Amino acid sequence: MTKRLLLALGATTILSTAAFAGVSAETDPVQWALENDPVAWEITEGLTTEVGARQGGTEAEARARAWALAYLRKSGFANVREEAFDMPTWVRGEERAWVVSPFPQKMVVTALGNSASTGDAGLEAEIAYFPTLDALRAVPDGSLAGKIAFVSHAMKPAQDGSSYGAFGPARFVGPNIAAKKGAVAIVIRSVGTDRTHRNPHAGNTNFDTGVTPIPAGALSIPDADNLVRMIERNGSVKLRLLLTPRNLGTQKSGNVVAELPGSNPALPPIVIACHLDSWDLGTGAIDDAAGCGIITAAASAIKATRPRRTIRLLWAGAEEVGIWGGKAYAETHRAVPHALAMESDFGADRVWRVDFKLPDSAAALADRIAARLAPLGIGRGKDPASGGADVGAIIAAQNLGIVDLQQDGSRYFDLHHTPDDTLSMIDKAQLRQNVAAWTAALTELANYEGELTLAPKR
Amino acid sequence: MTKRLLLALGATTILSTAAFAGVSAETDPVQWALENDPVAWEITEGLTTEVGARQGGTEAEARARAWALAYLRKSGFANVREEAFDMPTWVRGEERAWVVSPFPQKMVVTALGNSASTGDAGLEAEIAYFPTLDALRAVPDGSLAGKIAFVSHAMKPAQDGSSYGAFGPARFVGPNIAAKKGAVAIVIRSVGTDRTHRNPHAGNTNFDTGVTPIPAGALSIPDADNLVRMIERNGSVKLRLLLTPRNLGTQKSGNVVAELPGSNPALPPIVIACHLDSWDLGTGAIDDAAGCGIITAAASAIKATRPRRTIRLLWAGAEEVGIWGGKAYAETHRAVPHALAMESDFGADRVWRVDFKLPDSAAALADRIAARLAPLGIGRGKDPASGGADVGAIIAAQNLGIVDLQQDGSRYFDLHHTPDDTLSMIDKAQLRQNVAAWTAALTELANYEGELTLAPKR
Repeated sequence: MTKRLLLALGATTILSTAAFAGVSAETDPVQWALENDPVAWEITEGLTTEVGARQGGTEAEARARAWALAYLRKSGFANVREEAFDMPTWVRGEERAWVVSPFPQKMVVTALGNSASTGDAGLEAEIAYFPTLDALRAVPDGSLAGKIAFVSHAMKPAQDGSSYGAFGPARFVGPNIAAKKGAVAIVIRSVGTDRTHRNPHAGNTNFDTGVTPIPAGALSIPDADNLVRMIERNGSVKLRLLLTPRNLGTQKSGNVVAELPGSNPALPPIVIACHLDSWDLGTGAIDDAAGCGIITAAASAIKATRPRRTIRLLWAGAEEVGIWGGKAYAETHRAVPHALAMESDFGADRVWRVDFKLPDSAAALADRIAARLAPLGIGRGKDPASGGADVGAIIAAQNLGIVDLQQDGSRYFDLHHTPDDTLSMIDKAQLRQNVAAWTAALTELANYEGELTLAPKR
Repeated sequence: MTKRLLLALGATTILSTAAFAGVSAETDPVQWALENDPVAWEITEGLTTEVGARQGGTEAEARARAWALAYLRKSGFANVREEAFDMPTWVRGEERAWVVSPFPQKMVVTALGNSASTGDAGLEAEIAYFPTLDALRAVPDGSLAGKIAFVSHAMKPAQDGSSYGAFGPARFVGPNIAAKKGAVAIVIRSVGTDRTHRNPHAGNTNFDTGVTPIPAGALSIPDADNLVRMIERNGSVKLRLLLTPRNLGTQKSGNVVAELPGSNPALPPIVIACHLDSWDLGTGAIDDAAGCGIITAAASAIKATRPRRTIRLLWAGAEEVGIWGGKAYAETHRAVPHALAMESDFGADRVWRVDFKLPDSAAALADRIAARLAPLGIGRGKDPASGGADVGAIIAAQNLGIVDLQQDGSRYFDLHHTPDDTLSMIDKAQLRQNVAAWTAALTELANYEGELTLAPKR
């Protein structure tokens, strides 16, 4: 990797001597990152090429951890280590669907995480159609006996990702509701926004304790549209479904942790997070190799400026399948005070807004960060920052300060959890804008010696 | 279908009373089609919903023929009939690929038509990498023994589709060349232009007589890019390939033929063609349900004007897998004189150019057609028209006149032969522009009583 890094830097030097003449990582790390950062791409390209898909709890995720440890050590970070934990692991098997009648044809389907298996013989049943999740909620218990529920709740894209909150429940809880009402299986319209490509969106679902899981799949959106057309024509549609996932029981996963030590070790660290695992259909480029690339690139970019506060990098394990890494991190580090948390886990498109959750005493700090971000085309939001999945537990445990660098999510749910989440979707210019934004924010935060948590230090 | 058609017309009437006030199918069929045609969409939607994928020689194609016969009869066409023929039939089985070393991960692959099977156990071999087809051609016979050839010839989009000619041979003849040089299998970069979605492009390949077919697959373009990155890093890459297609031997297929009888039965007919079959990964919307929709809608639009010359519709069978329908049509109808041939088989995006191949005596006719097309944003080309696959044999047999309404192919090879060829990709406004263009051309052609063939009548 080091050789490649040098080559990349060498090439950049030749191509933009003018930029180098005026900008160095020492004097202006933000501009330098915007124009020259090689690290975010290198990590995104490296993980997707040399590891590919890396589902939490699998051997591929273990290879990803080995890759991460080697990369972070070669890059000169301190205290690079793996923090192992155990977790239950579900893996995909065969997955196919066919309309049996009235219009026989294949459908493209993927099993949702924690789906039950249909068995190798598959199952065949009439569809009970629900245009929305509320329509499913409204039918009486037991009314779906012998049926495959089909929930066709149609998500729309939103720049801030808010539509995932509105439409995600079709996946998160739809299967649980259908199981309670007696359905033999469920298929949902993919909780995603790519209306034209025939790739389904994977992701976890969960069944309540005491509810027997049923086979649960997501149809690609063109297939869901086709199924709706059939239902509107004919009423009765029979589907055959084959999903053969398995539970592997408890498996090993782990977080990868590394540090850029601050010049004042007495100051509690800032933790910056991404997740190393991915869903298995794509190669996990936007979700979330890019996030690991962005946070690591920013930490690398400010290294030469020797910031006062330690920056701790958390490349979390097993986020997609239950945020196991984030919970394990909080468990392990609960007793040690942290200052603030940030996370990059919303793709690789440009940052468009910054949100804060800081003590009142840090108001001037927030103003300085916002001022540094404005030249990058980033506005200031009024929402309180909320952090991210992997830092959620440590934030809750210690009431940490938070800065959210909100990424443009307009196309995120076109790609998220689909086979199309590959390196080919990464826009290098937008990726570097992310690094520049993180570099700007970290420059202020890591040199701020005042209080950053919202409660008194513990 | 009739009920739906009436409903569609009803809705259109409400929405565009103003247009109806000035435009009727009788007085201005071109403008009427541009604003109101319901037929092209109805056929495209109907075939993709009620039949879906319909590979030549399969039971699904037989259902598509039944659908077509019923539709054309209900729509009032004359002499609606099936003209059966036999053909050899190859069908897809399992298809998977994995990089075994150095970077283990799945790849997305599809078998090329006429590929051999790897057997259920699959095969594993080192890759021999060829950035271009010429690089494969250049290596000595026997030099690929024990290797999987990988040809990564990268196609670029072109509005006129010309890049298919430049890059298609990687698929058409690459496998045959690799087999002759001793390769145990071949994978190619998909001959398509969608660089970002992880769906491979299917399509036929052919092996020379005496050459033993080898397993031959197409990788999605993001996967081909990933494989190239691995090779550039590591040199040696080992791939495992599982492709289990089968030859079903001789199966039934057929053409569907229908007519709009001209008021002067002495004039030889104009044959207008599309193909009814599709590849099996998508639902065959742009390739070529839309083509059948366009030609049939145009014939419907001019019906009320009672044109002089008979228009014969050919919905050809088994085009994708060897142009069996087009050859069968020429065989059956060789003895009966035709006047001119046209075909729609390049998607559903707008017509941008018209090309002619007509006798000199018809120069004024070509001028009139070009003048009618100009208001639709269609320019006049200088290339001689060449027709299409399904009318190729009858054109050659009778030296027919040809008019080509060239469609914009900029995104055609993003979708062509992939799972993404579904109804979701159809742009209704562009589809109607096609119908309007065909209506304009047919209005002139079907009322022209002069000579249209290039050789004397037989």
